Amino acid sequence: MIVLSSYVSGTWKKGDGAGQVLVNPATEEPLAETSTRGIDLAAALDFARDEGGPALRALTFAERGELLRAMSRIIHQNRDHLLDVGMESGGVTRSDAKFDVDGAMGTLAYYADLGKELGSRKWLTDGDAVQLGRSPRFVGHHLLLPRRGVAVHVNAFNFPAWGFGEKAACALLAGMPVFVKPATSTALLAHRIFELIVEAKVLPEGVASLLTGPAGDLVEHLRGEDVLSFTGGGSTATTLRSVQPVVRDSVRVNVEADSLNAAILGADVEPGSDTFNGFLRDVFRDMTQKTGQKCTAIRRVFVPRDRAAGVVEELVERLRGVVAGNPKTDGVTMGPVATAAQARDVKAGLELLRAESRVAFGDGPFEPVGVPAGKGFFVPPTLFVQESAAAAKNAHAHEVFGPAATVFAYDSTDEVITQVRRGGGGLVSSVYADDKALATELVLGIGSSLGRVVAISAKVVDQAPGPGTVLPQSIHGGPGRAGGGEELGGVRGLGFYSQRVAVQGDRPFIDGLTGAKG
Amino acid sequence: MIVLSSYVSGTWKKGDGAGQVLVNPATEEPLAETSTRGIDLAAALDFARDEGGPALRALTFAERGELLRAMSRIIHQNRDHLLDVGMESGGVTRSDAKFDVDGAMGTLAYYADLGKELGSRKWLTDGDAVQLGRSPRFVGHHLLLPRRGVAVHVNAFNFPAWGFGEKAACALLAGMPVFVKPATSTALLAHRIFELIVEAKVLPEGVASLLTGPAGDLVEHLRGEDVLSFTGGGSTATTLRSVQPVVRDSVRVNVEADSLNAAILGADVEPGSDTFNGFLRDVFRDMTQKTGQKCTAIRRVFVPRDRAAGVVEELVERLRGVVAGNPKTDGVTMGPVATAAQARDVKAGLELLRAESRVAFGDGPFEPVGVPAGKGFFVPPTLFVQESAAAAKNAHAHEVFGPAATVFAYDSTDEVITQVRRGGGGLVSSVYADDKALATELVLGIGSSLGRVVAISAKVVDQAPGPGTVLPQSIHGGPGRAGGGEELGGVRGLGFYSQRVAVQGDRPFIDGLTGAKG
Repeated sequence: MIVLSSYVSGTWKKGDGAGQVLVNPATEEPLAETSTRGIDLAAALDFARDEGGPALRALTFAERGELLRAMSRIIHQNRDHLLDVGMESGGVTRSDAKFDVDGAMGTLAYYADLGKELGSRKWLTDGDAVQLGRSPRFVGHHLLLPRRGVAVHVNAFNFPAWGFGEKAACALLAGMPVFVKPATSTALLAHRIFELIVEAKVLPEGVASLLTGPAGDLVEHLRGEDVLSFTGGGSTATTLRSVQPVVRDSVRVNVEADSLNAAILGADVEPGSDTFNGFLRDVFRDMTQKTGQKCTAIRRVFVPRDRAAGVVEELVERLRGVVAGNPKTDGVTMGPVATAAQARDVKAGLELLRAESRVAFGDGPFEPVGVPAGKGFFVPPTLFVQESAAAAKNAHAHEVFGPAATVFAYDSTDEVITQVRRGGGGLVSSVYADDKALATELVLGIGSSLGRVVAISAKVVDQAPGPGTVLPQSIHGGPGRAGGGEELGGVRGLGFYSQRVAVQGDRPFIDGLTGAKG
Repeated sequence: MIVLSSYVSGTWKKGDGAGQVLVNPATEEPLAETSTRGIDLAAALDFARDEGGPALRALTFAERGELLRAMSRIIHQNRDHLLDVGMESGGVTRSDAKFDVDGAMGTLAYYADLGKELGSRKWLTDGDAVQLGRSPRFVGHHLLLPRRGVAVHVNAFNFPAWGFGEKAACALLAGMPVFVKPATSTALLAHRIFELIVEAKVLPEGVASLLTGPAGDLVEHLRGEDVLSFTGGGSTATTLRSVQPVVRDSVRVNVEADSLNAAILGADVEPGSDTFNGFLRDVFRDMTQKTGQKCTAIRRVFVPRDRAAGVVEELVERLRGVVAGNPKTDGVTMGPVATAAQARDVKAGLELLRAESRVAFGDGPFEPVGVPAGKGFFVPPTLFVQESAAAAKNAHAHEVFGPAATVFAYDSTDEVITQVRRGGGGLVSSVYADDKALATELVLGIGSSLGRVVAISAKVVDQAPGPGTVLPQSIHGGPGRAGGGEELGGVRGLGFYSQRVAVQGDRPFIDGLTGAKG
């Protein structure tokens, strides 16, 4: 069996002992194994800080951007191969694999362009110099300097390529070396991308490290100027946020966790209209794309009571067309979930929803195609219907990370705002309405509980990519249950990796300092 | 004895049972007692969220600014009285009390002006609308909406007025109600300010609550849209950051904790020059002002080796003139520290420094004036000298929160940068140099480990207020040991109390939404 290595301290290293086995989620065939035992993580982090940090900080934004462009190109040049790796190791369809791999490529390219735009500077300023005293001579200006530590990225299993790319793009452009720990189950894809990057020798040593397998005591070795960015489940987030380097030494943490994203159909939207059809398209896509394993996927669907039955009927009709099975088999439109544990969690979650809502689709026979009988981590797409959003509890509190959603009938704008907010903080929600006043009321009513709101009207329904797609121009993250974090958002994404420092002094000095840009 | 109350749920409430006794730190005479037992904290937080939140969010920035202006005016109108309360309850000199009370008044007035400037909007936008797709029609814009929770402020004992004012100013202007928990030992001043504000009826009910005494299980009742801002010691910060609402529900936390602030005398600065004298002035002021109980006070003093002896001599000369004693006694220039526990901590800290450095001042007889023999929480001003900054450990790791500092002799710019950074993250450091290239190298060399750097040259030495003064225009906070937080900084200070949300939609809708400003 293939034994994977980690790329640390400038070299590929295998861990000791029997490794964790990675399997094809559709067939359960073993693909590789990996161990991280015996790898000196403290030394590996020091190598990143001491070698990668200074090398990166010596580069301008434009030069760092070129590193990102080279990474994006490597993914582009090996796209077909990487799609195959993604399909096999993630159990996803070719279309799903594209969503991940192209997302990584595009986000790296976006930040490469941003680097070019930021040009020959090495750090950013924030705002203008402002007068501090009675005379105009004493002024203050805020700088954003790269933190002199290492950026540890603990990534989720569902986006092995994009998760690596979007986090690395912001950190590297800001001037911090990255130490990437992909989820072990789907690590093959991130591992392959790293192999290609290392082979191409496009990055200075220490700028990017990869830990392929369990994290061990990695986070215990973090220090005050390091940062930790985590995407994954809320319980792991709680654990990571409780470690000593975080609670004692203020290691900066970004968390992107659970989210009960909502889609709201406005009371003004007529069945059959473009906006209505876009709403159905987005809900259906989010239920089935990547087998519902998107942190941004719509989980709660709010529909005016008099239209709820019609919406359910339309969605059920679409769900009947889903062909679950081995993504390598012709005609398959939805793969398994990523692991046996995920399949168990999803099934347990479906029971929680079933306890309070009616099943509109998903109780029928379910036989995945193209796989040996009983093999693969498959779960049926399932649609629930709930007449009283207020009465439901689990649907507002438990994220089923699979192909499931609940349709709620609602009676008033106030009610739907209250019920959406019961999610306790989310990544994104979407409003489908052509009435501007209504859309405004909904967006501002739910906004402070979210990181992103997508307002879909007839004017953009044909070009908006759907709320499940994270664009690098807009922030990604959300308060409360969603983890309280924030990534991307153009140049905002560099803030997490920078220390904002107020510099006070005489105006000619401050102007010279900030004009020189490092 | 006076029994203090808490202002919660729109009314003054006394706690049950025997309270904690507040004493005059100079004489140990009891001043008041307070208890918080039996106060329904969950209900009190709900009252702030449910009554104060909507009332504040309905106001424009200009209107919220007027609330702050009214608060500032109340302090101004009662200034003499409040200075007396501050002196008696804090054990500080009149000058020290002014630093605190005037700081509160000034910061509230600064944010009142900012509110006026922000005008008739109710929330802010961040950046411009940007095109997201191929057509210019689909755009994204970031809003900063008030978080719909309560802002809990756990304040430090050393700035009972300013600590309340600076935190409340940002929260209230951003649109979040405040729930203030002053340090119990010096709570009399914050309590008196609250009484005056409540009597004047300038704030809508629920907008400001006060918990006078132990916090009990206050933080256990926080929820996802609440925020917690803490100023105080690192060990309490560790505890607060570990509670379930923080690690599980992503309650946003701001911490301002320990800091080993440095002052660096540049190698170009000649003894007797204006810059040199400003350096001595600032070091001496920070050792003695508020008896060294400023989080921003200079603790580590870096001097070129050939000038170290001269600097020590000058500082010792100044320290000889310090008259410690009861601040109510004529001629006293330095009071006690705030509590018996603080006095014990400072004395233990002095022993840690003594173990590795020579005492240049502070070993002589020490007899505070104007107090009964043996009474009061007095500690002697103490200056240490260390020939090898690299050899010292405690001086870079242990903040003595009293009238103490260590002078280090240094040999090179690289050395001093390395040694300043050993503080592990700080609030502020200052560079005294007239050579711009040297000042630039120092500022950029230490910058990422700090929240603020003050560059003092001959051009501003007469008007810069000294690094120990926090100005509302510049951020206050710092990475690592300093807690990783950030307050103030003009409009930046509103960010902590706001949720940034990306709104995506068609351009006319987005422009209408942001143009309407809520």
